[in-house]
Amino acid sequence: MAQLYHHPLDPQSRFVRLALAEYGVDPDLIEERVFERRRDFLSLDPAGETPVLVTDHDVVVPGAAIIAEYLDENLGETLEEHRLLPLDSEARIEVRRLVHWFTQKFHGEVSNWLVTEKVYKRFMSAEAGGGAPDMDLVRAARANIRYHLRYIGYLTAQRNWLAGDRLTYADLAAAAHISVADFLGDVPWDENEAAKHWYARVKSRKSFRALLADRVPGINPPQVYADLDF
Amino acid sequence: MAQLYHHPLDPQSRFVRLALAEYGVDPDLIEERVFERRRDFLSLDPAGETPVLVTDHDVVVPGAAIIAEYLDENLGETLEEHRLLPLDSEARIEVRRLVHWFTQKFHGEVSNWLVTEKVYKRFMSAEAGGGAPDMDLVRAARANIRYHLRYIGYLTAQRNWLAGDRLTYADLAAAAHISVADFLGDVPWDENEAAKHWYARVKSRKSFRALLADRVPGINPPQVYADLDF
Repeated sequence: MAQLYHHPLDPQSRFVRLALAEYGVDPDLIEERVFERRRDFLSLDPAGETPVLVTDHDVVVPGAAIIAEYLDENLGETLEEHRLLPLDSEARIEVRRLVHWFTQKFHGEVSNWLVTEKVYKRFMSAEAGGGAPDMDLVRAARANIRYHLRYIGYLTAQRNWLAGDRLTYADLAAAAHISVADFLGDVPWDENEAAKHWYARVKSRKSFRALLADRVPGINPPQVYADLDF
Repeated sequence: MAQLYHHPLDPQSRFVRLALAEYGVDPDLIEERVFERRRDFLSLDPAGETPVLVTDHDVVVPGAAIIAEYLDENLGETLEEHRLLPLDSEARIEVRRLVHWFTQKFHGEVSNWLVTEKVYKRFMSAEAGGGAPDMDLVRAARANIRYHLRYIGYLTAQRNWLAGDRLTYADLAAAAHISVADFLGDVPWDENEAAKHWYARVKSRKSFRALLADRVPGINPPQVYADLDF
């Protein structure tokens, strides 16, 4: 049985949970609070970041983008023409470009701030930096998300899915990161219809169901979060 | 003729220049000052980050890790058993883990601060944030680099190269990022003999020569920078 070290509101973990669900892999989920810097977790992954996948052959695969490559290399063929990392060389560039966009750029400008300030700091000790959210960072994240929504709207006005004709890792990475902002009530959906329609389509997938059922003690998502016709 | 949009002291660009040289590809180098946010460059890569490779078939490949995957998929076989991303599944995980370590973690904790504060800010207008370096960030980078050197020393005490028996992208990524700190005189080489020996071996490769010849107006590297027996 595969294991995934994750946090329910870590967007990078959510990307991998979506990918695993698309492949039909149902791992044991182990909640990891990375800020506790648990010794056993650091020995699995010296970088100490979620997600980390441990396969049923005890192969340790750390990091969302690396797990995505690993899953494609080992399970990609099983999805046939629905492969999440297409075989065509230029399509691969575009999928990886957008995965990087969301797992690095969107994370750095939006989702990491929201999760750190509004979620992790609630569970961190005062010595470790816990406490009330820094609202300047939350406001910066809320401002930045608007241009990312416009970019999603721009891409999906020209394409069926973010990277082209079919659903790929690009959609899963983007939707995973946005889903965390949505859980926290920080997505201005009324600003971009095209982005909203794209998200509604990803959110309606079976692979998304477990994410919509996630709850974290003390934080209640807005009603639209789990609503497929939001 | 392939083109590489780069900056001489951008560590991500240097990683790709090393990789291209290992494959025997000699691109036209086009210096890009990303902080100028040049419109033509943004139309090549909306993220506006160096490096961007434009192949001789006009394929645009943005970002160091994505270029590395692209080069492996298209030229990897030509290196035969010296392939920079090995074929074995677990070896690929380890190479990608370490590439991510240096292109993301080391970049975020060391090389990005050094280059932004000590190089880019020198060429940026005051309105764009140019000016004197923020020495708090430079000191933080200098403190952080010490544990990365220890990690390199730890790995190379057990292995011939960073990720295993052979030179891989992991060594090129690590050496590229360290080379920028070295250019700026910010590597405490006397603290870790194993790391120093590893770096001397990478630096002696033919692929490294062009990097050692780089100069930037107004910044002179210390004498050890280009010395192969430093």
